[in-house]
Amino acid sequence: MDLKQKIERLKDLKTKLYQKDFLLTWEKSEDELKMVLEVAAILKNLRDNNISPKVFDSGLAISNFRDNSTRTRFSFASAANLLGLYIQDLDEKKSQIAHGETVRETANMISFLSDFIGIRDDMYIGEGHKYMLEVGEALDDGYKNGVLPVRPGIVNLQSDQDHPTQSMADLLSLKEHFGSLEALRGKKIVMSWAYSPSYGKPLSVPQGIIGLMSRFGMDVELAYPEGYELIPEIIDIAKNNAKVSGGSFKIGHSMTEAVRDADIVYPKSWAPFHVMKQRTELLQQGNTKGLENLEKTCLAENAKFKDWEYDEEKVKLTKNQDALYMHCLPADITDVSCDAGEVSKDVFEQYRIPTYLEAGFKPYIIAAMMLTQKFEDPEAVLSTILKKNQKRVLY
Amino acid sequence: MDLKQKIERLKDLKTKLYQKDFLLTWEKSEDELKMVLEVAAILKNLRDNNISPKVFDSGLAISNFRDNSTRTRFSFASAANLLGLYIQDLDEKKSQIAHGETVRETANMISFLSDFIGIRDDMYIGEGHKYMLEVGEALDDGYKNGVLPVRPGIVNLQSDQDHPTQSMADLLSLKEHFGSLEALRGKKIVMSWAYSPSYGKPLSVPQGIIGLMSRFGMDVELAYPEGYELIPEIIDIAKNNAKVSGGSFKIGHSMTEAVRDADIVYPKSWAPFHVMKQRTELLQQGNTKGLENLEKTCLAENAKFKDWEYDEEKVKLTKNQDALYMHCLPADITDVSCDAGEVSKDVFEQYRIPTYLEAGFKPYIIAAMMLTQKFEDPEAVLSTILKKNQKRVLY
Amino acid sequence: MDLKQKIERLKDLKTKLYQKDFLLTWEKSEDELKMVLEVAAILKNLRDNNISPKVFDSGLAISNFRDNSTRTRFSFASAANLLGLYIQDLDEKKSQIAHGETVRETANMISFLSDFIGIRDDMYIGEGHKYMLEVGEALDDGYKNGVLPVRPGIVNLQSDQDHPTQSMADLLSLKEHFGSLEALRGKKIVMSWAYSPSYGKPLSVPQGIIGLMSRFGMDVELAYPEGYELIPEIIDIAKNNAKVSGGSFKIGHSMTEAVRDADIVYPKSWAPFHVMKQRTELLQQGNTKGLENLEKTCLAENAKFKDWEYDEEKVKLTKNQDALYMHCLPADITDVSCDAGEVSKDVFEQYRIPTYLEAGFKPYIIAAMMLTQKFEDPEAVLSTILKKNQKRVLY
Repeated sequence: MDLKQKIERLKDLKTKLYQKDFLLTWEKSEDELKMVLEVAAILKNLRDNNISPKVFDSGLAISNFRDNSTRTRFSFASAANLLGLYIQDLDEKKSQIAHGETVRETANMISFLSDFIGIRDDMYIGEGHKYMLEVGEALDDGYKNGVLPVRPGIVNLQSDQDHPTQSMADLLSLKEHFGSLEALRGKKIVMSWAYSPSYGKPLSVPQGIIGLMSRFGMDVELAYPEGYELIPEIIDIAKNNAKVSGGSFKIGHSMTEAVRDADIVYPKSWAPFHVMKQRTELLQQGNTKGLENLEKTCLAENAKFKDWEYDEEKVKLTKNQDALYMHCLPADITDVSCDAGEVSKDVFEQYRIPTYLEAGFKPYIIAAMMLTQKFEDPEAVLSTILKKNQKRVLY
Repeated sequence: MDLKQKIERLKDLKTKLYQKDFLLTWEKSEDELKMVLEVAAILKNLRDNNISPKVFDSGLAISNFRDNSTRTRFSFASAANLLGLYIQDLDEKKSQIAHGETVRETANMISFLSDFIGIRDDMYIGEGHKYMLEVGEALDDGYKNGVLPVRPGIVNLQSDQDHPTQSMADLLSLKEHFGSLEALRGKKIVMSWAYSPSYGKPLSVPQGIIGLMSRFGMDVELAYPEGYELIPEIIDIAKNNAKVSGGSFKIGHSMTEAVRDADIVYPKSWAPFHVMKQRTELLQQGNTKGLENLEKTCLAENAKFKDWEYDEEKVKLTKNQDALYMHCLPADITDVSCDAGEVSKDVFEQYRIPTYLEAGFKPYIIAAMMLTQKFEDPEAVLSTILKKNQKRVLY
Repeated sequence: MDLKQKIERLKDLKTKLYQKDFLLTWEKSEDELKMVLEVAAILKNLRDNNISPKVFDSGLAISNFRDNSTRTRFSFASAANLLGLYIQDLDEKKSQIAHGETVRETANMISFLSDFIGIRDDMYIGEGHKYMLEVGEALDDGYKNGVLPVRPGIVNLQSDQDHPTQSMADLLSLKEHFGSLEALRGKKIVMSWAYSPSYGKPLSVPQGIIGLMSRFGMDVELAYPEGYELIPEIIDIAKNNAKVSGGSFKIGHSMTEAVRDADIVYPKSWAPFHVMKQRTELLQQGNTKGLENLEKTCLAENAKFKDWEYDEEKVKLTKNQDALYMHCLPADITDVSCDAGEVSKDVFEQYRIPTYLEAGFKPYIIAAMMLTQKFEDPEAVLSTILKKNQKRVLY
């Protein structure tokens, strides 16, 4: 199927992405998720063929990273630049925000000429998603009152609940790897906890994966050592998704058992929900001593599960001894980035390129979220772009 | 009046803004101030109607913030991006400037492909404005000697003396609020000191307000507790402006008395001129102990004036019990950002949206300062932009 | 000769710059160096005549500064913006790189939509150039495996070995100053160590200068106090270059002797090679005590050579008592930036403007390196740009 046809087929999707924030995949319909995937693939295809999908002559895309980031920062910048926007960082250390400004005010003050705000706020359980909603309400208020000429769209670049730009990029890479979304039906994907010599890793990736992959008829298995639970509400969402989509969802407590006959394995460390809650409280109290103690306890607890490493032995248990390995990167690689980690050196090296390809979809997923938020009829916009045939490299 | 007519009317203004820096409003003629206001309104109008007023295909706008900023940083970035420029931050911590470079050299080194330098330097009394002049002379020297292909324009983003992008945005919001500049004639505006639990706030806003609002026949009243003086020379400027413009200027020492029958009230904290001078000396000496003592003394002094809060009672004394409340934001709001502040929670909330609208003019004021600095005939440029009708959102 | 002819003449140069990184001038043929010089001059000429040489509609240029920079940072940003690219900083403090990511992975993660990576890594002897090669291999790997749609080009913004954007800008300024590359034949250029009250200055500038200026038949003299050697391999390169080009290369140990009859004098401090090696080891060990001791010893050693200042007396020894003074800036200027430095106040002031002009070529040199890396036929691209005549300032 050629690009023209791909674009035309978007008409078949019934979506209400227009002027809606993209915060949680489970708030979006199946058609809406498909729309974002298709638009992302089309944007990638356009650019690979040196066609510029610029849709803005000027305008700002604001990034607000409340936690460190390289990949997502570059993905966001790439996406915004691809569509014609300038990226302005809201660096809370440089700004007056540290001096007690309300979220409501700041959200408006930075948005007079902005089209999007990308937010990462994944550190505090119970806070990240709430913060994004708060920003959204502030923008609604500003738009309604004539303060803002347009209501900027919010893109969740990782919250305490979901990491939709990651999980959607992962899904797009699965779609491309297996040929279609339909081909994923009945495939077994294992989202497994894995050992890491650090603690306090966010829950948003595993939650994002089980919350999204359960939408497409896959057999989703979540594996973790007893005690390393995720947010219970999101487990319920995954269960329900599986029911609706005709797939299955189960929880196990052995990586070895879980990976048996798996088509896809996603081994990644996270901190238990109850630890993250404690940590959030301690952080909010500024309780340094408490945080140190918590870290010590947790690292000791983690150390009991060093065998939760995805290694050659475990790969052998998977479908055709060759399940697709996935990771949001950077992985904790045994003998590379640490003494004992989430994945053995050999296994990582074997699947390294697929993980890079996986990561490469993220800029286009973000761009697709932006484009579908901004334009009511993405098919018309993309058709015009294709026809216009503006070169990205001009000569 | 439609946009076309608005643009044509610019011909009536006699201005010499071309290739001049915008440092102090009191250096500009009435026509020049009107030109900036009109161009700002036109640029806003164009963008609101999805017409891109891009005038550069490439080029840099440099921001040099020697003090924290969110709003002005975003305003500057928005303005530069709107006109087609890329924003490059001169971050003195990242650069070699800390290692003893002369202002003269740096000004040239960053300007080879630059069109504007926006500078905030408001901390040291006697220094900020001087620094901007120094940069300007360095750029003149570079341009004259063939080092720079164009002489970049300087935009004062806040100095020790004036804050013209703020005061001009304030004036534009008054113009829009009351319908015209003419409508401001005879209106009473009160620039009042207000209590804040911090000390050391710059003088540039109150100075900027009295220095500008006295130009248009308004009755300007400056109110502050005995001792909280501004720079004397700027008081003289305001007095003289009032005389020339047919307005009035007076100083009082009671917020309650001042706000009586006011049409507009601008309650904002600042540090007394003599304190800022002392503080500047101590900062220059790196005298930490002295700074701590000064802060303690000043906060104790401030605390005597907690009743300088703009509250419901005071609003009732104003014209129709409904004077327009103004603030450059963020305000110190009692029970919101502090226990006792510049304004009560209810009053702020009542006038919150107008303050947001006020802030929203700043990007366009900056863009107008840039455009009038760069083009000898703004009317011709804006007419061409209107005719060309290049969309900002392309589809 | 007009611009059209200048562009056409590029056809005469046989080059293989296309899709090659620009890391060391001594890896490039004479025609390749000439191509970069010519393209840089043409780009400057185009922009000076208000023609925009934009060749990208979107895309990222990444800057990775592992050491402080103002000038080169602005030059890189200016170059990228001139060609139509957005600049994204890889700030290793902000990112997850500090947490143990491999160079290989990061290089790919930031490059999905990137066209260039500019790298400064000059601190550690034996590391900077190696790091750039490593990044290059990572990009090759990513491109070969379909991870990256294009192989981003690397521009060396200063390594432990060479500083080609500096030396090429210096060469271009010499070409313009003396009229042609041919005119440089037989000219005497002195690269001299000079006293500075700091220690640990990189070797890349003197190495870059002797490695490049020896290519064009000049008489190159390197002067330094006994012990202040450069990397021996690069001395060999300079010697060989001189032989091949019909010039000469010699080393002396007196600034006074060296500058006699010089046409050009480039007095600049650096740390001895063996000190830089020691310093690198200590830095890698995190040996603070050792670093302090090394600094003390070195400063004491330096202090023996305070007479290595380029002053009025030495200028009088040069050709026509008026050799061209060069410096990469900022210079340590006696009585300006320090008590005793590389150059006297009067001499610096006399040649200040030429050093500014010298610096002004750097953005264009970087842009030329990018353009020749990206396009196989720069002549065709530049001809089209000239014909298209897109204005930079649109009105």
